[in-house]
Amino acid sequence: MSKVTRFGVSLESQLLSQFDSLLKKTGYKNRSEAIRDMIRGLLVKQEWEEEDKEVVGILSLVFNHEKRELTEMINHIQHQHIGAIISSTHIHLDSHNCLEVIILRGKSRVIKKISNQIQSTRNVKHLELIRTTIGKDLE
Amino acid sequence: MSKVTRFGVSLESQLLSQFDSLLKKTGYKNRSEAIRDMIRGLLVKQEWEEEDKEVVGILSLVFNHEKRELTEMINHIQHQHIGAIISSTHIHLDSHNCLEVIILRGKSRVIKKISNQIQSTRNVKHLELIRTTIGKDLE
Amino acid sequence: MSKVTRFGVSLESQLLSQFDSLLKKTGYKNRSEAIRDMIRGLLVKQEWEEEDKEVVGILSLVFNHEKRELTEMINHIQHQHIGAIISSTHIHLDSHNCLEVIILRGKSRVIKKISNQIQSTRNVKHLELIRTTIGKDLE
Amino acid sequence: MSKVTRFGVSLESQLLSQFDSLLKKTGYKNRSEAIRDMIRGLLVKQEWEEEDKEVVGILSLVFNHEKRELTEMINHIQHQHIGAIISSTHIHLDSHNCLEVIILRGKSRVIKKISNQIQSTRNVKHLELIRTTIGKDLE
Repeated sequence: MSKVTRFGVSLESQLLSQFDSLLKKTGYKNRSEAIRDMIRGLLVKQEWEEEDKEVVGILSLVFNHEKRELTEMINHIQHQHIGAIISSTHIHLDSHNCLEVIILRGKSRVIKKISNQIQSTRNVKHLELIRTTIGKDLE
Repeated sequence: MSKVTRFGVSLESQLLSQFDSLLKKTGYKNRSEAIRDMIRGLLVKQEWEEEDKEVVGILSLVFNHEKRELTEMINHIQHQHIGAIISSTHIHLDSHNCLEVIILRGKSRVIKKISNQIQSTRNVKHLELIRTTIGKDLE
Repeated sequence: MSKVTRFGVSLESQLLSQFDSLLKKTGYKNRSEAIRDMIRGLLVKQEWEEEDKEVVGILSLVFNHEKRELTEMINHIQHQHIGAIISSTHIHLDSHNCLEVIILRGKSRVIKKISNQIQSTRNVKHLELIRTTIGKDLE
Repeated sequence: MSKVTRFGVSLESQLLSQFDSLLKKTGYKNRSEAIRDMIRGLLVKQEWEEEDKEVVGILSLVFNHEKRELTEMINHIQHQHIGAIISSTHIHLDSHNCLEVIILRGKSRVIKKISNQIQSTRNVKHLELIRTTIGKDLE
């Protein structure tokens, strides 16, 4: 069980009431939870700035599976970096379009490199990279 | 097979050579591919601005699986929106931390709502949402 | 004088100590100030999403002043929207390059439109828009 | 006069027509101009990643001028970094709120540090930093 510390925050009353409206709108049950999330967001951003930090990345790519060389290329890139790839989920969006979601774990430098390599491959329609965390250093 | 059009672009020579260096650095084989990617990026952004457009979202959440109520809550939210959820992959990051990657398809408005709902749940350490496309309207 | 409210926040101890390191690194004197800034950042983002909210925008553009038609065009656009423009500062970066920083106040919809209009003008090398606030509703 | 090079781009016809609609919507007169702007945007981003590159930054801060110590602090910080500050424009937003727009030129590392220093100052309601360019290396 992780220890919890309680501390006081001073906020202008009007600012606090605007914050409370925002929380209500987005579904937060209490202020601590929202503040916790903002802090964690900052910390994960910082983790990704350190090149040798172990992080988790999620790559999503939308492509046309009829372009055979692309499927092979993505396979090839995945095997080249086998140590970094945890899993890969393939979704048939329609008869032409596929979505592949690849979960990676490793140094941020390596994950960014794999992302660039796939992005620059011909016929990838859209690629995005989620930058998240292994969670260990983040309560 | 989709038809391809060729058109001319005028670029200051110095700007072009800087562009070429950038492409080399990121691994692009040719300028057309890089320009295609930049255009598609803009179009997907636009798709997400239209509330009723069918899009694909990928939600990643890192959380501590020992917080039992969280696992149940995430399950509950997923079942509430069963029509929008395509798949869900669960990764054990270590003995405490889990990663769940949920692939969603539906109106951008609905996907954003689900994302907010899960984000505001207690004990989600880090949540990110990839905004991507069903690919159909995007060559 | 604005009234200040004090409330308690519960944070996992490890998360709190990581937050404190981050504050030290960026120069914050206390946690309340950092939390206030995160909240205000969210609120200003929200203001810009409401199309008819009065906001403040700062447009920066870098361009080559030798392209005479550009200078005239920027002048023309500014006069078209005279009600929205508070001030304009011109800096000579070198013998060719100029920086113009235009401060605007008005509905977010109008400021975005002016920004698009100038961005799409030929020979603007780089344009950025700061989205900030009139401050009145933000303690 | 800078030399202009013309080169060919191949684009799927549907993608091209979507691009053309987008340009029309945002006001671009021709494709080259839009492509030029996308490329320059990437290059300026890259300039800011090199810590020792000379760049231009525009800092906007909204604050309450009645907090006397803040005005003095901002003045103090500006004088500390006198070499980096080109100009400073002050706007009275209302009887309480002020906007100060500071134009800086120097190494990206230094400008980021000044921005952090001011951001963490008490009573700055909202601070944003535009990352732009001296323009010299950008046709």
